[in-house]
Amino acid sequence: MDTIKCMMTRRSIRKYSEKEVSNIVLEKILKCAMQAPSGVNEQAWEFIIVRDKELLKQIPTISPFAGMVAKAPLAIIVCTNLNNESIFYKGMGILDCSAATENILLAAHALGLGAVWTAVYPDEAKANKIRNLFNIPSSIIPLCIIPIGYPAEKKGFDDRYKEKKVHQNKW
Amino acid sequence: MDTIKCMMTRRSIRKYSEKEVSNIVLEKILKCAMQAPSGVNEQAWEFIIVRDKELLKQIPTISPFAGMVAKAPLAIIVCTNLNNESIFYKGMGILDCSAATENILLAAHALGLGAVWTAVYPDEAKANKIRNLFNIPSSIIPLCIIPIGYPAEKKGFDDRYKEKKVHQNKW
Repeated sequence: MDTIKCMMTRRSIRKYSEKEVSNIVLEKILKCAMQAPSGVNEQAWEFIIVRDKELLKQIPTISPFAGMVAKAPLAIIVCTNLNNESIFYKGMGILDCSAATENILLAAHALGLGAVWTAVYPDEAKANKIRNLFNIPSSIIPLCIIPIGYPAEKKGFDDRYKEKKVHQNKW
Repeated sequence: MDTIKCMMTRRSIRKYSEKEVSNIVLEKILKCAMQAPSGVNEQAWEFIIVRDKELLKQIPTISPFAGMVAKAPLAIIVCTNLNNESIFYKGMGILDCSAATENILLAAHALGLGAVWTAVYPDEAKANKIRNLFNIPSSIIPLCIIPIGYPAEKKGFDDRYKEKKVHQNKW
C-alpha cells in the first residue's frame, strides 16, 4: 500500500475475524516497529506478543476500554525500558514507543489487518495490574496494548485536517 | 512509496539541499500528521511552520543538537495543547503528538524529503525558550522541532530488529 494512502486511510479497527495472524506477518510488523526513530538511538522498547486466549480475555478486566482485546487473535503490549534511560534520554522512552506504536498501526493497515491503540500509560494503577498479569518488572512502563486481527468492520475516510491548527512562523 | 518499505528505509536526515519545499507538498505532510490516532480522538496537536530564515537560525542557539535546523528550508514545531486535556485524556497529548511526528517523518521520506526529530520535550528550560521565541502560550507544550528539506546526504539500511526485545505471552 502507498505510504500516504496508508496514513490517510488508517482507522481504529475494533472488530476482528477469527482468522489467525501468521508469525511471518507479525514479524514484518515488529520489524517496522523497531525501525522507528528513538532519542539518541536508545531503542528502549520491548514488545510482549499475547496469543494466549486466557490472557487476552483478562486484559479487559483491567482496561475497560480494551474490551475488543478479548476477541482479537493477538495483542502487542508496547513497553519502554527505564533501565535504558541515560541522562540525555530521560523521559523520552514513552515518546519513542508512541512512534513505534504508530508504525505498528500503519504496518497492520498496510498488510490488510486492523488494529487500535488502547492506552495503559499514564494510568499507573492500570500499569501495575498489567505488570502483575504479565510478570513485567517495575522498571518497565507498559505504554499501550494493541489488539490486531483481520478486520470484521469497515470504516470510511475521516478527514481530520484543520487549517486553524497550522501556524506560520509564530504562534 | 510502499508503506513497509518507507518505514524500513526511513533514516534521520540532517543535511538538506537549498531546494524549497512547496506548500503543496507541505500540506500533504500536515494532512498525514493530523490523521494520526489520538486518545479519545482529542487531536490536541498544533503545528508551527517555520520558514523565516532568522527564526530558523535562532533555533540551534536554544537547542544545540538541532544545528541542522539553521540550514533547512523549513521546520515544523509539533506542539500539544493542554487546553484540550479532559479527564480521560490527561498526559496523552505528548504521545499523540509523537504519533503525528512519526507520520510527518514517514510522509517526508515517502515524498522524497529528509527530516529528523529534534527533541524539546521533556526539557522544560528549552521549552520555555522556544515558547519565548515563537510566542507560544504556556499552556502549549512544544514536543519537538522537525527540520525538513530535500536530502543532501544518503543513508543506507540500518537493521534495528532485535529478537530479544520480543516476549511471548509473558515478560
